[in-house]
Amino acid sequence: MAEETRSVYWDEGRVMMINQPLIPLRFEVVAFDTVPQVAEAIRTMVVRGAPAIGAAAAFGMALAAHNSPAESIPALLDDLRAAQALLAKSRPTAVNLFWALERCMRAAEGGAWASVGALREGMLAEAQRIADEDIEINQRIGLHGAELVPDGATVIHHCNTGSLATVGWGTALGVIRSAALVQGKQVHVLVDETRPRLQGARLTAWELVQAGIPHTIIADGASGHYMRRHGVDLCLVGADRIAANGDVANKIGTYNLAVVAKENGVPFYSVAPWSTVDMAILHGDLIEIEERDADEVKVIQGQPVAPPESPAGNPAFDVTPHHYLSGIITEYGVIRPPFSVNLARLAEQIARQEV
Amino acid sequence: MAEETRSVYWDEGRVMMINQPLIPLRFEVVAFDTVPQVAEAIRTMVVRGAPAIGAAAAFGMALAAHNSPAESIPALLDDLRAAQALLAKSRPTAVNLFWALERCMRAAEGGAWASVGALREGMLAEAQRIADEDIEINQRIGLHGAELVPDGATVIHHCNTGSLATVGWGTALGVIRSAALVQGKQVHVLVDETRPRLQGARLTAWELVQAGIPHTIIADGASGHYMRRHGVDLCLVGADRIAANGDVANKIGTYNLAVVAKENGVPFYSVAPWSTVDMAILHGDLIEIEERDADEVKVIQGQPVAPPESPAGNPAFDVTPHHYLSGIITEYGVIRPPFSVNLARLAEQIARQEV
Repeated sequence: MAEETRSVYWDEGRVMMINQPLIPLRFEVVAFDTVPQVAEAIRTMVVRGAPAIGAAAAFGMALAAHNSPAESIPALLDDLRAAQALLAKSRPTAVNLFWALERCMRAAEGGAWASVGALREGMLAEAQRIADEDIEINQRIGLHGAELVPDGATVIHHCNTGSLATVGWGTALGVIRSAALVQGKQVHVLVDETRPRLQGARLTAWELVQAGIPHTIIADGASGHYMRRHGVDLCLVGADRIAANGDVANKIGTYNLAVVAKENGVPFYSVAPWSTVDMAILHGDLIEIEERDADEVKVIQGQPVAPPESPAGNPAFDVTPHHYLSGIITEYGVIRPPFSVNLARLAEQIARQEV
Repeated sequence: MAEETRSVYWDEGRVMMINQPLIPLRFEVVAFDTVPQVAEAIRTMVVRGAPAIGAAAAFGMALAAHNSPAESIPALLDDLRAAQALLAKSRPTAVNLFWALERCMRAAEGGAWASVGALREGMLAEAQRIADEDIEINQRIGLHGAELVPDGATVIHHCNTGSLATVGWGTALGVIRSAALVQGKQVHVLVDETRPRLQGARLTAWELVQAGIPHTIIADGASGHYMRRHGVDLCLVGADRIAANGDVANKIGTYNLAVVAKENGVPFYSVAPWSTVDMAILHGDLIEIEERDADEVKVIQGQPVAPPESPAGNPAFDVTPHHYLSGIITEYGVIRPPFSVNLARLAEQIARQEV
């Protein structure tokens, strides 16, 4: 995906985002001039997908620095802390959001800035690095993951984890991209439509059309039927947060897919950058699950599909316990069970810069 | 549910049906004057739900008799056979359709009719009996099933199996109705929205609003999350066809729900009249699965939700192997595993009229 179609980027003092709720019906890029606008864009899912949210938040910090009238470094740092607090409230579950904000704040507080202007430029450079690294990381993830995709594979994919969910290339969809476009394998993707927000039908299918990769959209409830009657080689999903024991918080519907995959002997992989792993969370049931507006279930593209009197539940995520996973695919390679041991070992190696 | 709001009924030479695609937005009854119209109404799901389809087909036969210009009994029987053939092609999976058509045909061919007019009246009387028996059977099913619903229960229900799916009262939803309205138990229903056609969100929620039974609509992919985090006492689903070994063909998404229920230790029951059991089908994988139009997945209430270039798969049903079922609830009581033995035994008792 070319630079100009990154899901989020900086353009002359504004944060630019592909307006994802309009896809696949319209392709449009929107500009945001203020930090509250960026926070609102994250909250209303103009931008979504954990890595893309992280980059959007980082550019939000760059915007805070850019817009701040502060004339001293401590005053600018105060403004950055206020922006961090505001942006951190936009989505509760995506660890990349907090990770990106903290990384920007660490860079701001840790740098020996010659001037307020240098700190401003430093913030933009840090956000830009987070965005560039995301694409580079995704391409490394893609190569590791593509090794697991046999030629001629049928893959079930849940939600959207592609260029739109990241800054570019994608995580789970990046693996499919690497297998099909880099390695030249035949891949057929069964696209879980992913209710309630239909990120699969709307976004993943759109990306697969752009990439020319064969695919079929299916209702989320049909995945098991396809495994039983048609044969599925593997499932690839993203992750919004991975606990220290390998439990994965991801888009609602992931857990059902994982259970059905295990029952049918279909390998199930979660694909995510290492930044998604939260070693401070012991297991997945400690992860807070965001409850979103009932109207996301009851109204589709402006059309009511349920009685107005009926309540609806709308948990944005679920937790898939680690024993349903065949592996976790990161930029460092494929992590296998036992996850608590192997994640801890890798975390240590990363801390010691041994990988 | 009062007579005038039966899902399908006869009114002065016309077959009347509640126009189910309009619910919950509008309540409207449509009249059909010809057999091809009735077949088309079944095909396009103006009427849906296996028992309601059976009654609609029976009234279609009554309509064939009513409209036929035949002046001899053999000529009228020929017209009835033609109507049977046409109606049988309207939906491939629902066994009640074939069962009702054959029952009407048997009555026609087996009767000692005094006149062509008597045969015409006999056909209407047979259709009326099928409709009346359906409600009576559902109320017997409801009482058997309600014994399994604890007071204060949270129940997951898939698709629509209520008054709209039957002639009245309902099967799985009839059990909920009997538990809540006849036995006065507290019941909270988690309503699987049931993509792609959203029969849960549209029809089941509408019926529960009418009946004043507390409920929450959820995305199909969220059922496992609710089992893990909120606690679910049992799952109740209908059946479109039950094989001799207890395998159940039912609305797409049933199999995923059953697998997730079993994994979470949640009892899972299929609820259906005995007419749904097809002892001629040895196991579920022999059941033909209807593939419906891709636009049911790609377009919701007239709004496109996917790229026009993307194909979509739309199997209307899936098969849940019998070992996921805790029991099958019929008008003869709750059938428990081993199903192949217990279904065969019951079939024999029914044939001998011992039950």
